[in-house]
Amino acid sequence: MLRARRGGIGYLTGVLNCVTRGDSRRMARPSSIRRGSCGRETPWRGCYSKLTTQRPAVVRRRLVTLQRVELQRRIAEGTGEFLLFALTPPRLTTEPEQAGQIAAKTLERLRPVGLDGLVLYDIDDESDRNPEERPFPFLPTMDPADYLARDLVGLEVPAIVYRAVSKYPEQRLRSWLSEQAPTHALSVFVGASSRETAVATSLSRAYELRTEVRPDLLLGGVAIPERHTRGRREHVRLLAKQAAGCSFFVTQIVYDVNAAKNLVSDYHYECAARDVKPAPIVFTFSVCGSLKTLEFVQWLGVDVPHWIENELRHADDTLDASYDQAVATAVELIAFCRRVGVPFGLSVESVSIRQVEIEASVRLATRLQAELRR
Amino acid sequence: MLRARRGGIGYLTGVLNCVTRGDSRRMARPSSIRRGSCGRETPWRGCYSKLTTQRPAVVRRRLVTLQRVELQRRIAEGTGEFLLFALTPPRLTTEPEQAGQIAAKTLERLRPVGLDGLVLYDIDDESDRNPEERPFPFLPTMDPADYLARDLVGLEVPAIVYRAVSKYPEQRLRSWLSEQAPTHALSVFVGASSRETAVATSLSRAYELRTEVRPDLLLGGVAIPERHTRGRREHVRLLAKQAAGCSFFVTQIVYDVNAAKNLVSDYHYECAARDVKPAPIVFTFSVCGSLKTLEFVQWLGVDVPHWIENELRHADDTLDASYDQAVATAVELIAFCRRVGVPFGLSVESVSIRQVEIEASVRLATRLQAELRR
Repeated sequence: MLRARRGGIGYLTGVLNCVTRGDSRRMARPSSIRRGSCGRETPWRGCYSKLTTQRPAVVRRRLVTLQRVELQRRIAEGTGEFLLFALTPPRLTTEPEQAGQIAAKTLERLRPVGLDGLVLYDIDDESDRNPEERPFPFLPTMDPADYLARDLVGLEVPAIVYRAVSKYPEQRLRSWLSEQAPTHALSVFVGASSRETAVATSLSRAYELRTEVRPDLLLGGVAIPERHTRGRREHVRLLAKQAAGCSFFVTQIVYDVNAAKNLVSDYHYECAARDVKPAPIVFTFSVCGSLKTLEFVQWLGVDVPHWIENELRHADDTLDASYDQAVATAVELIAFCRRVGVPFGLSVESVSIRQVEIEASVRLATRLQAELRR
Repeated sequence: MLRARRGGIGYLTGVLNCVTRGDSRRMARPSSIRRGSCGRETPWRGCYSKLTTQRPAVVRRRLVTLQRVELQRRIAEGTGEFLLFALTPPRLTTEPEQAGQIAAKTLERLRPVGLDGLVLYDIDDESDRNPEERPFPFLPTMDPADYLARDLVGLEVPAIVYRAVSKYPEQRLRSWLSEQAPTHALSVFVGASSRETAVATSLSRAYELRTEVRPDLLLGGVAIPERHTRGRREHVRLLAKQAAGCSFFVTQIVYDVNAAKNLVSDYHYECAARDVKPAPIVFTFSVCGSLKTLEFVQWLGVDVPHWIENELRHADDTLDASYDQAVATAVELIAFCRRVGVPFGLSVESVSIRQVEIEASVRLATRLQAELRR
């Protein structure tokens, strides 16, 4: 059976080579900007520039504080329409100095995009989930919480830290929860990838711990459209997770737009039937620069429609084709969710350490930011 | 196993209440009009008006002849981009006079659309194909070939007459074939709907007969994207049918655009691999004015994605919602086929005898004609 994977594509870690920490101007987003009738903001950069010419130091502090809670507000209020970028922490074997450089470079690259939050995956082997040979070897990665605390201190938007809860003894999870500042961090708990996995803490117990220790920490759950295709029960699972404390959901990479629309639609009508406010669903996209990456995406349980697979296999430039594909899928889902009335977010997952793929990921995020502002 | 159905939705026959035979001006389409770089025609009505003010009688005859072979030319040359309208003949119990009125009214309604051809289904029970209860009772209908010859004599575009070949003894099929004028008629042969069906003539034998008796009669085959979803072999079947003489294909009603794109894509790459020119695939659309009709469509083996089913079930106006759905699906398939380079046609299937649904079908055809000219 298909199970939630713990996060990003774990074979290529490190990602998004380094930077120095700069000012937050282009990541900041004042929450006071007037919204249009569609509920989306007017572009904020102009407003910000105007403000900074008046009182730069004061404004800077104010904006950093505001932006820290903007994502949380959009989740809590169920308005959605936010953009995330998702990373895998560097490999466990990375030298501390190099990890710091990677983090700095990452922040520099992402600053112009105007993100609302950064997702940090918690990678696990998952070989027990899929008997097929793993297209890339599993390489353990740093704990995303450690990476955030130690190396991503320049981050000026909230971080969504994944927790593969079965890996952590209850006490460790409890102490981690107690250390979190809900203005700075959110979390997504992911359960065991298969029934064979050794489980230190179950997903349901982890939900209880968070309710007990840090109920103000916004919690997300994974949403798997592919699982909905198989059993048409994923929308019911989402509602159960919502009842257990989740206030948003994140999908794995979306290639099958129909499967995603089926889940959104069933979730929408089930929420209406139960008189529950729908929580934002974050759809994840990525670029794919090679067929081996495509195979790995499929190995992870992502359904790639034949026609998309054909196009990527026969494309003169796989990366360009996958970029176009991701944009088209996102545009279709944005239109669908807005029409149906299910709040949503978008996330771009950086999959590779190849320079061109990293640049394409950032370009994709920039493009999706523009789509959100339409 | 899902098998080809013999044609239209057979529970509601008759369809498209009557007319007098008028002139053919708006159905005519001179084949000499220059094509743009995209292979589509510039609008023809203006040219025609200009011609008619000069020599109406001569032009009229010439246009009627030209239009008679326009569809065949587009199929034979593999250019596609044509529009059909598909009907179920009246019930077998319909009085001859009434059948004539129905036919005349049908032609009057369709004249403004500017069709390239009319599809006439050959209806069979098909209860042996699906053990589920048939949502509507089966009512035998007139033989489409008889209906065409007797009642649709005013038709000035070619007719595509379906033949459920297992119903007909070889001799009857042979004599029917010999009577056809390839400028006026095309045919689609459909095999038995299940293995339990009594078979007077097999599909492969029917193909042989046509090659022997009337090789110049353009022959089509059914293409079922849903079957491709189950086994991913439909593209290979299409090529086998092509080798047996088919020069175009017609789908059942398309709701699952992804399934259709998968079939088109696999067919495209298989044609390229075998160095075979792809034949036009005609995608069929319909409006659906009630949930019972939707259930019947599903009973026939059409995959309706959950999100579309949800929208139709919850729509304030099911008919409007299904119209929008059909347009959106057609637009997506048009763009996809043009991009991939697989020639295509569109067909609108009239499903119901309800006046509003008939009008919506004709409106849909008019809208799709406009999309073809974009």
